Order: sequence, then structure tokens, then C-alpha cells
Amino acid sequence: MATGTLQFVVNGHGALLTCLFLIHIGHVHCQQFLIPFKAPSDCGQKEFFDISSLSCAKCGENQRQSTTGLSCICLPGYKTTNLSSDKGPVACEQCPTNKPAVTKDGFGCIRCPGSLNEEGKCQCSSGNILVERDVNGNLLDEATCKACNSDSPALSVPNISGDKCEKCQATFINTSCMCTSPNVLAGGLCFPSGGLSTNVNPSVNYAQLKFSIQSAWFEENLYSSAAACLLFSNLTACQALGNMCVMNMHSVSSVANDACGLFNTIFSSKTTLSSVQGIAYWKANLPWLYYGNEPGLASRVLQTDPVPVSFSLRGTKKNTDLRLLVAIYNVRGDFLRWEQVGGSNLQFCPESATRQAAAFSFGTAYQQSCDLSVAALLVAHPEPQFYDVFMDVGGQNKNLLPLPTLVQNQQYNGQYINQGTMKNWYLSRRVFLVDTLSGREKSLSSSPKVIRVATTITIRFQLVPRTQVGQIYPPLVSVSYTDVLITDINTQTVSLSFAVEYEMSQTDARTMTDTALGVLGGLALICTLLRTASYKRRIASALIDMATIGKFLLFFAGDLANAFFAVTVGTGLYWLIFYKAQMFVSVLLPTPTQEERFVTYIGCAFAFKAVQFLHELYLQVSVDIFLIDWERPRSKPNRSVQGATDTQQDSSPVSIWRTYFVANEWNELQTIRKICPTFQIVAVLFFLEVLGFSNLALRDPWSTLERLPQAYTPPYSLVLRYGVAATLWLCIGLLQVIFFTVFYEHFVEDKIRQFVDLCSVSNISVLLLSHTCFGYYIHGRSVHGHADTNMEEMNNNLKRERESLCGQRGLVPNSDIQTFQVSINRNLRSQFDRIQGSLSRRNRPSRLMDASTANLSELQFRAYNTMNHFLGSFIDHGLSEMDYVVRDKLILERILGMEFMEASDKSLFYNDEAHSFSNVLFYGNESLLLIFDTLFFCVVDLGSQNFVLAAVLTYAQQTIFGFLRNSLGRRNLVNKTLVDQRFLI
Amino acid sequence: MATGTLQFVVNGHGALLTCLFLIHIGHVHCQQFLIPFKAPSDCGQKEFFDISSLSCAKCGENQRQSTTGLSCICLPGYKTTNLSSDKGPVACEQCPTNKPAVTKDGFGCIRCPGSLNEEGKCQCSSGNILVERDVNGNLLDEATCKACNSDSPALSVPNISGDKCEKCQATFINTSCMCTSPNVLAGGLCFPSGGLSTNVNPSVNYAQLKFSIQSAWFEENLYSSAAACLLFSNLTACQALGNMCVMNMHSVSSVANDACGLFNTIFSSKTTLSSVQGIAYWKANLPWLYYGNEPGLASRVLQTDPVPVSFSLRGTKKNTDLRLLVAIYNVRGDFLRWEQVGGSNLQFCPESATRQAAAFSFGTAYQQSCDLSVAALLVAHPEPQFYDVFMDVGGQNKNLLPLPTLVQNQQYNGQYINQGTMKNWYLSRRVFLVDTLSGREKSLSSSPKVIRVATTITIRFQLVPRTQVGQIYPPLVSVSYTDVLITDINTQTVSLSFAVEYEMSQTDARTMTDTALGVLGGLALICTLLRTASYKRRIASALIDMATIGKFLLFFAGDLANAFFAVTVGTGLYWLIFYKAQMFVSVLLPTPTQEERFVTYIGCAFAFKAVQFLHELYLQVSVDIFLIDWERPRSKPNRSVQGATDTQQDSSPVSIWRTYFVANEWNELQTIRKICPTFQIVAVLFFLEVLGFSNLALRDPWSTLERLPQAYTPPYSLVLRYGVAATLWLCIGLLQVIFFTVFYEHFVEDKIRQFVDLCSVSNISVLLLSHTCFGYYIHGRSVHGHADTNMEEMNNNLKRERESLCGQRGLVPNSDIQTFQVSINRNLRSQFDRIQGSLSRRNRPSRLMDASTANLSELQFRAYNTMNHFLGSFIDHGLSEMDYVVRDKLILERILGMEFMEASDKSLFYNDEAHSFSNVLFYGNESLLLIFDTLFFCVVDLGSQNFVLAAVLTYAQQTIFGFLRNSLGRRNLVNKTLVDQRFLI
Repeated sequence: MATGTLQFVVNGHGALLTCLFLIHIGHVHCQQFLIPFKAPSDCGQKEFFDISSLSCAKCGENQRQSTTGLSCICLPGYKTTNLSSDKGPVACEQCPTNKPAVTKDGFGCIRCPGSLNEEGKCQCSSGNILVERDVNGNLLDEATCKACNSDSPALSVPNISGDKCEKCQATFINTSCMCTSPNVLAGGLCFPSGGLSTNVNPSVNYAQLKFSIQSAWFEENLYSSAAACLLFSNLTACQALGNMCVMNMHSVSSVANDACGLFNTIFSSKTTLSSVQGIAYWKANLPWLYYGNEPGLASRVLQTDPVPVSFSLRGTKKNTDLRLLVAIYNVRGDFLRWEQVGGSNLQFCPESATRQAAAFSFGTAYQQSCDLSVAALLVAHPEPQFYDVFMDVGGQNKNLLPLPTLVQNQQYNGQYINQGTMKNWYLSRRVFLVDTLSGREKSLSSSPKVIRVATTITIRFQLVPRTQVGQIYPPLVSVSYTDVLITDINTQTVSLSFAVEYEMSQTDARTMTDTALGVLGGLALICTLLRTASYKRRIASALIDMATIGKFLLFFAGDLANAFFAVTVGTGLYWLIFYKAQMFVSVLLPTPTQEERFVTYIGCAFAFKAVQFLHELYLQVSVDIFLIDWERPRSKPNRSVQGATDTQQDSSPVSIWRTYFVANEWNELQTIRKICPTFQIVAVLFFLEVLGFSNLALRDPWSTLERLPQAYTPPYSLVLRYGVAATLWLCIGLLQVIFFTVFYEHFVEDKIRQFVDLCSVSNISVLLLSHTCFGYYIHGRSVHGHADTNMEEMNNNLKRERESLCGQRGLVPNSDIQTFQVSINRNLRSQFDRIQGSLSRRNRPSRLMDASTANLSELQFRAYNTMNHFLGSFIDHGLSEMDYVVRDKLILERILGMEFMEASDKSLFYNDEAHSFSNVLFYGNESLLLIFDTLFFCVVDLGSQNFVLAAVLTYAQQTIFGFLRNSLGRRNLVNKTLVDQRFLI
Repeated sequence: MATGTLQFVVNGHGALLTCLFLIHIGHVHCQQFLIPFKAPSDCGQKEFFDISSLSCAKCGENQRQSTTGLSCICLPGYKTTNLSSDKGPVACEQCPTNKPAVTKDGFGCIRCPGSLNEEGKCQCSSGNILVERDVNGNLLDEATCKACNSDSPALSVPNISGDKCEKCQATFINTSCMCTSPNVLAGGLCFPSGGLSTNVNPSVNYAQLKFSIQSAWFEENLYSSAAACLLFSNLTACQALGNMCVMNMHSVSSVANDACGLFNTIFSSKTTLSSVQGIAYWKANLPWLYYGNEPGLASRVLQTDPVPVSFSLRGTKKNTDLRLLVAIYNVRGDFLRWEQVGGSNLQFCPESATRQAAAFSFGTAYQQSCDLSVAALLVAHPEPQFYDVFMDVGGQNKNLLPLPTLVQNQQYNGQYINQGTMKNWYLSRRVFLVDTLSGREKSLSSSPKVIRVATTITIRFQLVPRTQVGQIYPPLVSVSYTDVLITDINTQTVSLSFAVEYEMSQTDARTMTDTALGVLGGLALICTLLRTASYKRRIASALIDMATIGKFLLFFAGDLANAFFAVTVGTGLYWLIFYKAQMFVSVLLPTPTQEERFVTYIGCAFAFKAVQFLHELYLQVSVDIFLIDWERPRSKPNRSVQGATDTQQDSSPVSIWRTYFVANEWNELQTIRKICPTFQIVAVLFFLEVLGFSNLALRDPWSTLERLPQAYTPPYSLVLRYGVAATLWLCIGLLQVIFFTVFYEHFVEDKIRQFVDLCSVSNISVLLLSHTCFGYYIHGRSVHGHADTNMEEMNNNLKRERESLCGQRGLVPNSDIQTFQVSINRNLRSQFDRIQGSLSRRNRPSRLMDASTANLSELQFRAYNTMNHFLGSFIDHGLSEMDYVVRDKLILERILGMEFMEASDKSLFYNDEAHSFSNVLFYGNESLLLIFDTLFFCVVDLGSQNFVLAAVLTYAQQTIFGFLRNSLGRRNLVNKTLVDQRFLI
């Protein structure tokens, strides 16, 4: 691999491009403007980092790198001469032997009174200062060391640069700047003896990591802070002591000489001092760290007195701003500032200001979490800051409410008391976010062994029960700290989260729900009993056997499902309306834990509804049906009923095509519905996902449909999701039902009506027996006697009928009621069953296309003809022993859905203009199907939180059940009417 | 309104709760733990802010607030005595009259040599120092003022606190610490005269706001930086000068004494100096600010030599990391550090680290924007930082590539040269983000009048054309600054954005597309010509008239739509496959601007397809159809064809019900398709939205379907969106077609086959004339002679046929081909038209339900019978003057879709086993419908970027056109066959 360098002139201006030809895998790269990477640390001892060229450059003679690496300084023993512009910024010159040392400013040479230090400068012993110039600034030939007078009244010590004497620290005893025994020198202060034992415990316990370390910060500052606080009432010292207790997570143990122990000792020693602002837990000069340790104090503090501020979401008194303030202290105990919560003080995941601000809009459930790298934390938080959180409740004085804090990690004699129930809680105050300081073991400049991070901060608001004006109890700040053992700061990350939660006691809501469920459950039971009674009447059996109990349970499942459904939809709608539309805050959403019960109810509703649906499906595909053909052969044009065998004698048989036509149409009716199910799904999806109705289910009190993409999106509430989806589904369903029944079926087409008309025109009646002794009858006898005719006569007939030139279509003369509910007596049923027995084929054919016709036997055709004749005679009152009467149903019978009169002697025909024969079709069970679909959609959505998936699966479910209903229904039709399934297309 | 205060003891521990009963609108509030808000600034002059109680507390006697407000200090003339723990931290004592002044440390009293300052301390005149203690630290009775010796060799001046003499600054001339004329004192330095005119222009021009201000920073530092750079070659001074030029946005004007003018002066004065790192634009000691001003340099720099690094997305050589480095300087010219780009240096919208890191993964289009409040900017950026951006290209030396920068606001003699075309660009280097400094007018501590913010930063990567190894040209950093006039910092916001863009020359792709379009357009033209020829043949016309041209254009629209569709789908798929699956980067997506052409093509495809679809719809609903009933009355069982009037004489007319049945089934066939359109929509939606195929359309090179919610989501690419959606739609459509034709129609049901069978069983033939002289014929003559019979015989017939006991169903003896394409001659057609004339009702009835039957006249029935008889005779070869022959179609005829032979003498019947009569139904035009739906879906999606909306609208479109097709088709059927529309249900 050959490498060559070539320089060439690009243009007249003489710009030089260094071009490097690298013959490299056959390609020629022309490299332009490449520079090697150099950092100051890459430069050698005799080089400096040239910030213009970003490369290392050589220092001048007798020079070496400065500490920053960005310039050169003279070697020890060399003084700096003035700038010379041509030989670099600095020139150095060796000091003469009679003045071997360099002055502190580096520009002169001097003799020393004593020895030289390693930088070639004079040094004096401690307590002395080095004097190189006289008082007028003239450089001396020889420097002198002068002792500072530490006795009173001079009380002086050398200053920090060691060139001047100045007053010593004020705590030192008046007579001298020495802290003599028995006084104690600590942290640069001199403490009188006897105030506090010097035996303090500077260890920090990392309970999660199961070890504790001797913290450099505590070693250095614990005793001095405590002593300064106790003896001198030093405000910052007291804060610093408190901060050390906070760094220990407020934990109190039996040893009294750790940070919190010392704090408590000082706290109790100050009983004589007045409380701050009238608060007993807050002593003058001390920070407020603990609420008291009385049992039950937490619930008294958190749930007794409402905060004197009222939140309102709308209108002129709109007030949704949560103004939280923090007083910030640094680790030394200095008060830094007041700050509004928001931005990066408590929420320190990076997030846009708009989204962060959403946390402090009342009612918006807020949840933010992120992973931060440990390296970034160490840079951003070299030492912890401490936050006292207040809520600004306004008013004349701009009052502040101190927020109680719950430290999850707080220990009391080794017990995690705050992780249990509220009655054991010990509330506290003051939190920190990141502590990278207490984990430094030997010195404060060493890197920490452990850092402690407030990984979970939750502010929890609780609404006062039954408030109408949006009052809350004092909010609780809950903090959980995590100890992170430092192993590799570049790869380690910490998960942080910040949340604002809202809750209210759900006791009232639960009572209401349970009451509603109880009442509706009772109603469901009554319904079911009626339904069972009606069923028993309709199957003409009075025996209470296992089958009856089974039926009872099936009916009960359906009714109970309705009860559950009503309760859940009601609850969802309640929350939707009350939560989203309230002006003053009076309700808050149930929390995810409180939602569990609700989800269970939905599950019950769905399970029961599914049972009912499957039962209904089974009933529909096993209904008894027979098509009665009234047409008689033309050669015998009299209308009297003939024997079954008569048809055979005639040369011109009655055409079966009308029967085929009617059967075909009946087959097509099976799965039509009062709504269009696909439109239903598409419309619901359109509203939820395109128009943004799903945004109504967000956990905030706003009811806007459109959210800006940059705005904060709260999590979804399951209750609201269900409420929105179910309501929308039901509303669109109802609108569709109204549209189809009121408009479409009147002006476009009504399939059910068309079928009844078709029966009439085709001279065919339909008898449907849904129960043993109950069913429906569609009277289709042609008023023209014959329907098996050509187009011209057909049209003439229709024209005559339109012009009322012939009789009416009804069963009873001069009536046009063609549809009936029938209660037949057992006599008739047994006769029917006998004929049916030979009609239905015992040996079910396999499902192959035309195998079914293979088994049609002579016997079956005879049975078909017999049945036709038998039923025709029955309808024509031709069988004296099996007669029937036509009557209207009583209103109560209609309402209860059962017949009061038993069809013992005569069968009963009830006029039924409402086409209730559609009960054996999907069409007549729209409410069941609609509720089942709604529940299916909602259950899938609750499981997946995805409306599109719910829509897709609902579509799949409808398709599958529709296909099942269709093919089983067709098979039933084939079996019961003998119509070849090739004609059911 | 009465207010009372009550204190009560809560429990034995004596905790006091201050409870305030406010009788307020009938409620009783119990206020607990409220404190008034106080900040240090709220405290009075004689108070301090007690950081423990967060309230104002009184200072002791003779004390006042310190400057921080957190403690008290003694009044002037009072000395501090030592701590006394009981009377507050500080006690003050008045100085005696003989020592009226307080020492600097505040703890002693002293006599002054001169006057006292307002703090009650001694003060000396300038050049003198105040001495209060002797060299050993003993306090003097009277302070003295000593003059510092400023002459050589002492060269001393008072230090900053005025209590000691020290060496003066090194630039002052050796002999004295005075900067005497002709030397110039500036910025604390003393410059020799003659080097640089002191007449500099410290104004900053805010071109957007149309004013310029005299900047305090420039006034203070411009001359001194320039002089120090020029005269002393001071590195930081040169950087500081450069930074001032950058703050002026690199703008060069005719005046040579502004920041950039001075920089350029110094730059050109240094011609003798060597260039840095061999780069001609980078002089030693100076920052690199400009590339040269040769014409066309920008394109040479940006588009000549690839960067010696190759990006690969997959495999062992995977390299997607963009490592950008910045060298950061502060405004004073100090080099701060090297930093990796990322985090908050260039992207300073708040965002999680994971998302920010996505910007530096090669190929991921990145776009981040936010609004930041001006107040926050002022706090976070008290002074600007300057960034030199490099790209780390690795290699042995860890080489860096300096990235050229394009400052949009850069002016050259008042022209915005960088906003035009690339050949005029002036590239530069070094950017800043926020400059709150140069806008300060009078002093550096005043608040700025204007701030300048880099509101748009874009890093643009360009791929080397035809690279196979992922090479790029040097990336360009494009910056646009905005001047913000400060009016109200608390409400003002600034919109910022940071973007990483990738582009490549689309010339190749465009050529390919255009070629493909040309070729396919040519093919389309040929197709259309053939189609038109075939059409002319089928309407038996040779004339080229306006109608022909119209037809030609309609056909051409369809074929051209296919060409456009093929090209767009091909392009979409090409990008999807090549972009998402490439290993070494060889293609990059077209940018939104480059996509416009593509969108136009899709628009054309859709528009043309819509024209074709509407045309087809019109043709289908105006087809001629007649149902030929072969059934003859029973009484004359001979098969010979009878006169039309014969049917009237018979007592037993031929039943019309079979015709009704067939017409009804035909009506149901109208809109069935080879796919289930709803399933199609639902499935596409499922793949796109639930399985996450939509993520394939994101502008990054990853092909994962699932994206984590916390990961960065790039914007969508229209090309990829179209590619994914169209491909998915076509694939699912094809799978459905295969499923339905191969599986469903064989094993479940085949509606078309069923219809043909039904014709056969019902003894009815169907003649369809789609053109004047071309159409289809379904031969349905029953092999049993009669179909109008009862169930038993019907079953027997079917049984006999299954057992092959009767003839075959075909038109020609011993064949079972029942379906034909027919070319009829004009003779036949005119006869047909004549009968048809009296058949079709002229006076269209209104659309009311049964009004249509009202007009059926005697004449029409006669015409119906005539037509039946006429067509029957024709098929039976009964009309010698109008005979026909049956033949097979040639292969070429099939392929071209036209008939070579003209039906001049005899009509021609072509065997057609493929049921091509479905061409007059939706069923036979599946490809047209599928493509139309695809385009409709995609066009809606491209417009709305919302797949759910596209799905909803596609469903609506299908429903509407389906309804239209159905109702118009039914009306046509009613008109042409006289079947009453009440039987078409």
C-alpha cells in the first residue's frame, strides 16, 4: 500500500490544498483540510497547547508548561522578563547566584531568609509572613520572614497568600488566636469545651447497598456544624447540620451521635426557645426537618384540614395554577433563593418548558421519567442542594403552606416506617435531588464511591370528599432515594421519575356503584324469572328440571350482563361528564389502583354477554321453519285444499321456484342488521382517532379534542377510555338504528317488509317455531289465488292490488295483518314432529357441495307434501280437532314478553304488526349484538390501549360470527325445508 | 364577616396547631401551618432575613442589613465585638471619638490620616495604600497612607483592595507603571503607538431590526484585542477579536475599522507568517474565520473531495456514528475545552439524551424545535460561547475535518450573499448560540437591548453520487441568527430549531423515472390504440369522429394512469428497499423539495384513474341485457319455438319466477368483487397502525417495526409512506385475490359459477351486449326440457344430470361450454334495437317505490315476448338470415382483446370458459378497482399524513360508489328486462 503526498496550487490566489493520495482498495481519496486531534493533555512537558492552531507548540527556552497547559512559564530559578513580540509571549532569564530565588510575582530575583520551596520561591515557617517589598512597593534585596502577633489586641494570623497579617476568626478566644485546650478546634472555629461531646459518628449508611462509609464531608463538618449551631446559634451551621441529617434520609437510630441524632439533641435542648411562626415542630434557628412522632399525626396533617384555596377549572374564577415554591439551601447551609417549582429544580428530566409546566396545572396527571447518565449527574451536581417545598396559597399575606414530605427510605430504629400504612408514617420536610458529596470517603476532592439520587418524586393531591368548591387537603411530597454504587460512570445510568397524582376517596362512588348494581341485579333476577316462566310456557312444560335451571342460568347471564353493562357505561359516562365538564373541582378520577374494580365489572359484563350471545346464536341456527306453498295446480283451479298425492296426477306440476325464491331471500335475511356493522366500526374509529375523541380519555380535566404535538400528553384513564368508547359506540349505533328504521327503511328499502310482501306475492307462507309450542307465522297466501304465472299476469295482479280491486292480504278476512306470533297446542306440535321426523334426514351428509341432495328420498318428498298439506289445512281451519283463534296480545303480555293464556284447546294466533319473527334473525336482536360488539371493542381496547387494534379485532369477530351464523343457518334451512342449498346463493 | 383566632392543644405532647376559623360563605376553614411569604428583599433596612424561619427578624442595636440581606452588620462608626450567643450573632460598639474610624476588618477602631468614606472607614488617594497594621499584625493607633513606587525597578501599584503595593501589568513600559503618551492605554494594557489607529468602530449592526448600537463590550475590548493581537501576538486577544467578528456575523463592509475589518487587516498583515496545519485560510495565532473569497470556492470545498470515512448501516463494518467535536472558546478568547457535539452544545432544546443522540446516527433525519423564554436564555447565557465545529474522521492520528459553516445572515458590503445560489456563497467557521453581551449599550452590567440567537442550525450531509461505500462530501453547518429586541423578557420567547439533513443528487433517480415513464407512456399509447381499434370494431364503426377521439382520450387516461401508477409504486418500492435495506450507504432519500415531482406523478395517476373508473362505471350501468326464457308451456311439450302470441292461449302460463330468480341473482352480482374491500381496509390498517409498518416510512435507515416511545421519531418521508401503503395495499389485495380465486371459490362458493349453473337449471339464457355489436352470452337452456316443475322432479333432474344420464349443458352438442363472447352482425343488432325500442319505457318514472310498474303497458309485454322468441330462434339457428358460428378465439385475439374477424355475414360466438362476461361487473374489473382504491388511499394519506383518515375515507368512497353502482345497475336491469324492481331484493 503506497502513500504519497502531493501539493498543488489550486488557483491564482495561491490557496494551497494539501491533498493526500491514498491508494486504498483501489480508490483515490483526496483529503482536504484534515488536522490531527490534540487536547491540552496530549502536549508534552515542554509544550503548550496553541489555542489558535489547536496543536501542541514548543515552549521557549528555560520554560515549561503551565498548569492549564495553555501557556508556558519559566522554570524554577528563572525570572520572567517583559514581553518580547518576536520570541513568544514570555522570555525567561536565570536569577543571579546572589539572588537565587524568584519573587512571588515571578518578575524579580531575591535572596531568601530561609530555604527555597520547589518552585524556587522563598518560604517561611507557619505563623510567619514573607515580605519581599517594603511598604512603598520597593523590592528588597533580601526577603524577610515576620511573625504575626497572635495575642490580644493584635490577634493576627497570616492571610491565605502568606504575605500579610490579618485578624483571626471571631470564635477564637479573645486573648489569643490559639485555640487552647480545653477548647476544641474544629472546622476553623474554636469551641468552648463542655457543650457537646466531640465523639460524633460521621458515617453515612447505604442501607440498599448494605454498607456504610465514613464520609469525608461528615468528618469535616459534622462536629463543627453541631457545635456552632448549639453554642453560637449559627444559622448556617444549623442548616448545614440539618442538611447532613437529610443526607442520611432523616433516619433516626438509637445512636444519638449521628447527624439526625445530633439534630434531635439540639432540637430538644431548645425547648425554651420559641417556635417559629407558631409551628411546634419548627424551632428558632433550626431547620424544620420532622413533624412530630405522635401516632396518627400523618393522617391528621394530611386529611383533617383543607387548604384554604379552591380550584376551579372554568369560568371567571378559573384557578388551575399550582404555585409551588422551594426555598433552596446549599450543603453549607446558606440560603440561596426562593424558586418556583418547575423548570429543573424538582423535575429534572430534560423536557420542553410547555410540557413541564403541564405538571402544575391542577387536575392534570403528570408522569415524566428518563434515564440520566451518572457522568452527567456528577458534572451537574457537584454538591447537593436542599429544597424546602411550600405551596403558595395566595391571600393577603401571600401565605405559604409547608408541604409535608414522605421519605420512603426513612428508617426509625432500623424499620422502614414510611413504606407501610399511613398510621405509621413519619412525615418530614426538606429533600435533595442528587448527593454526590456524602459518598466521598477520604477527601472531598476524591470521586464518590456511592451517590444517592431521588429517583422517584411524587406530589400527591387529595380532594376533600364532597367538596363543591375544589378544596384539597395538604398535598404530600413523596420521595424515594436510590443509592448508586459507582462502578463505571460513563455507562451507568439512573432512572428518574417525577409525577403529580390526584386522588379522592372513592367510597361514595363505590357505594353508588354497588347500590346501582344491587338494584339492577335485582331487576335482572325478576326479568330472568319472567323470561324463564315465559320459556316454560312456550315449551309447554311445567317441570323444573336441570334443563330449566340451565336455561335459567343462561337467561340470568344475559340479564346480569345488561346490569353490569348499564352500571359500567353509567360510571364511565359519569366520570366523563363530571370530571371533564366540572367548573369547580368536585370529583377526581379514580387512580389506576382504584380502577381495578371497574375493570372487573367490564370483564363480567363481557363474559356474561358472550354467553348470552352464543346461546342466542345456537337458538337461531336450530329454529324450526317450514314454507307452506298455497299454490295448487292450474288444472284444478278451485281453491279447496287437495290431498297430498293429488299433485302427482297432474301434467302441469306446481313450480318449486317460488319456494326457492322465498328460501333464498330468507337465507339472505339471516345476518342483516339494523345497523351497518362495518360503518359502525369505521365511524367509531373516525371519531376516536381522526377527530381526536380519544383525547377525552386523557387524565386531565380539559375537554378539547385537538392537542398540540408539543403539548404534554397525560396517561390515559381506563374509566374514561371505556366511557368515551362505549358512549361513542352506543351513540353511533343508536343514530344508525334511527337512520335505518326511520329513514332508510321508509325511503330506500326495508328487507323485512320486502320479505313479507314477497311471501304474499309468491303465495307462500312461512311457519317458524322457535320454541316447542311457540313461534311465528307469516301469512303469504296470494290474494289472486295463483302466483305461478307469467310476467303479464303478475303485473296485472300487482296493479289490481294497488288499485284495491281484490281482497286484503291478511289471514283474517278484511285485515292486512300478515304476521303473527303463534302459540300452538301440544296436539299440533306432536303431529308436526311426526311429519318432521321423516322430513329431516337422519344421516347428515358431509359438507361437500352437492352431496346433500344425494340422500333426498321419495319418503322425504312425501313428508314434504304431507307437511304442506297438513299445515295448509291447519291455517285454513280445515282440521277441526286442531283449530286456532286470532286475537290481539294484551299490553302486559307485550311488555312482559309472555303469553298468559295457554294454548290447551285451540292454538292461539296473536296479531303481530311489529314483525317480531325477526327475533330469530340477527335483525331482531340488534340490542344484544350492539352491546356485545361494544363490550368486545372496549375489552380489547382496555387490554391493548389501542383503538385501531380493537376495531380490527371487532371486525374479525363480526366477520367470523356472521359467517358462522350464515352457514349454520343455511344448513338448518336446507334440513328443515328441503330446499337444495345450491339455490341458496 | 367575623374572624377569630383560637389556639388549642392537640395532644399531650403539646404540639400547637394554629387554627384560624374563618367564617366564610358559611364554611369553616381550619388553617394549619400557614406562613407568610417573605424574601430577603422584603425585609426593611433594620431587619435581616432569618434563613431558619424564612421571615424577617430585627437586627440588634446599632446594626443594619448587610448587602445580601441575610445578616446584620454594624452601622458606620461602630465596631464589631466578638460573638455573644445570647444577644444575637453580632454586637456593635461605638468607636471612641479619638479613633472615629472602623478598621477594614470591622473589629477595631482607628484614627485616619485623611477623611473617612461613607462606610466610616479610612480612605487614601489613588496610587496610595492604606496601612492599618504594622508588618507583624499589630494594630496601629493611626492608619497611614503610603504611596506605591511606580518607577523602575519597583514598578508597583496598589493592589485591588488597596492595602499592599504589587507589580504592575507586564505591558507597561519598563521604566514606569504609567502609560505615557504616545503610548496608548486600553483594556488595562499599554500599547506602543503607531501599530494601529485608535479610531475603531465599536458598533454592532442589527440588520433585521434596522439599527445598530454602540456596544459596551466592543467599546471596551475591540481596540485592545486588536492591538494585543497585532502587536503582542496574544493568542487570547486574537481569539477575542475573532469572536467579535463572529458576533457581527462575519459581515464585511467597506469600513475597515469594525471587528471583521480589523481582523482582516491583521490577517493580511500576517502574510509572512506560516499557515496553520497547511491550511491557507488559517493563519498562525489567529482563529480561522473565513474560507477564501474566490468565486466558486464553496462548491469546490463542498462537492469535490469526499470525506475519508465510509458509513455502513449493517454488518461487521457497521459505522453509523457521526462524531462531531467542537472547540469551545469564551468571549474573552480563552480556550475552554473540546466537547462532543450532542447534549446541549448545539442542540439546546431540552430533550432526553436518547433522542438527542439520534441526531448523530447517520441517515436519521433529525428535526428538533422548541420555544425558549428570553428570560431563561438570559440566565443560561450571560455571555456567549463560540464553537469551532469539526468532524472526527478517525484514522491513526484521530483526524479532524473542519466543517465549513454557512452563516445565512452574513453580509458582504450590504449584500446577503449566502442566501443565494451556492456559487456566491462565502463559507466561514465559528458559530455562537446566544449572544446577550454585544447588545448591552452603556455598561456590561446593564441589561441588553437586543440579543442575537442562532435560531436555526442545520447540519447538511451530502452523499457522493454513485458511491457504493457510503462516502460523503464535507458536511455543511448552516446557521441563521435572529435579532431579538428585548421588550419584556418574561413573556418573550424565541423559536429555535436544530436539524440534521441528508441529501443526494437525484439526477440519476430522475433520469430513471423519466425513462421509465417515457417507455411506459409509449406502451400505454400502443395499448390505447389497440383498445380504440377493438372498440371501433365492436361498435362496428370505422368512422373517426369526435366520439372516437373522446373514447381514445378516455382509454388513454386509463392506460396512462397505469403507467404513472407503475412508475410511482416502483419508485416508492425502490426507495423502500434500497434505502431501508442497504448495508453501505449508497442512496439517500429525496428531500421534501425533491419529493414534489413524485407527488405530482401520484396526483396524475389518481386523476387519470378516477376518469377511467367513472367511465367504466358509466359503461357498466348502461349495458344491454336480456333474459331469454326457454321454458315452453307444458300442454305443448314439443321443443319447437312458438310464436309470441302462443303463450296467451294456454291455460297454464309459463311461470315468470325463474326469470325473477335469475334477475335477482344477477342484481346481486353487480358489486361483488374478487376481494373483500372492507377486509382489505381493515387488514391494511392493521399492518400499518397496529403492527407498525408505518414506521418503515420514517426518515431513517432502520427497518424495525416497533419503536420505543422514548426513542426519537424522525419525520415521515412521503415517498416511503406511499411506498409502504401502496405495496401493502397491493400485496394484501393480491393475496386476497389468490385466496378467493384459488381457495374460496373452489371450496366455499363461486358466485359467478353459481350464476351460470343457475341459468342452466332455470332454463334461462342471458344475453349481454356491452357494445353495439359485441357482448356476452350465457347459455342456460335446461337439458331436461323443463325447469318449471316441482321439487321432486327438480331433484330428479339434478340427480340424472349428476349421473350423466342426460345431455351436456353446452350450446354446441356434446360440449359443456356455456359462456361465450359474441360478435353480432349489424343486421341482428338493428332487429334487436327495433324490439328493444318498444321494450324500454320512454317515460322514465320518478324514483318512488312502485311507480315504475305503473307504466308497464301491453305493448311492452308483447315486445318482451317478441324479443324472447326472436333471440330464442336466433340461438336455435331458427333465423336463416341471421345465423352464427361458434369458434375458438385465437391466442393473439385473446391477448390483444380484439376480434380479427368482422361479423359481417354471420354472427360469431367465441367459446369463453373464463366467464369474461364478468367484465360488465365489478368482479371482472378487479385490477381497476384495486388500483383506484390504492391511489385513493394513498392520495388521502399524502394529504393528511393520517392512515386512519385515509382508511375511513376509502371506506366511504367504496360505499358510495358501491351504492351508486348497485342502484343504477338495478335500474338498468329493470329497464332492460322488465323485471319488477320489487323482485330485485
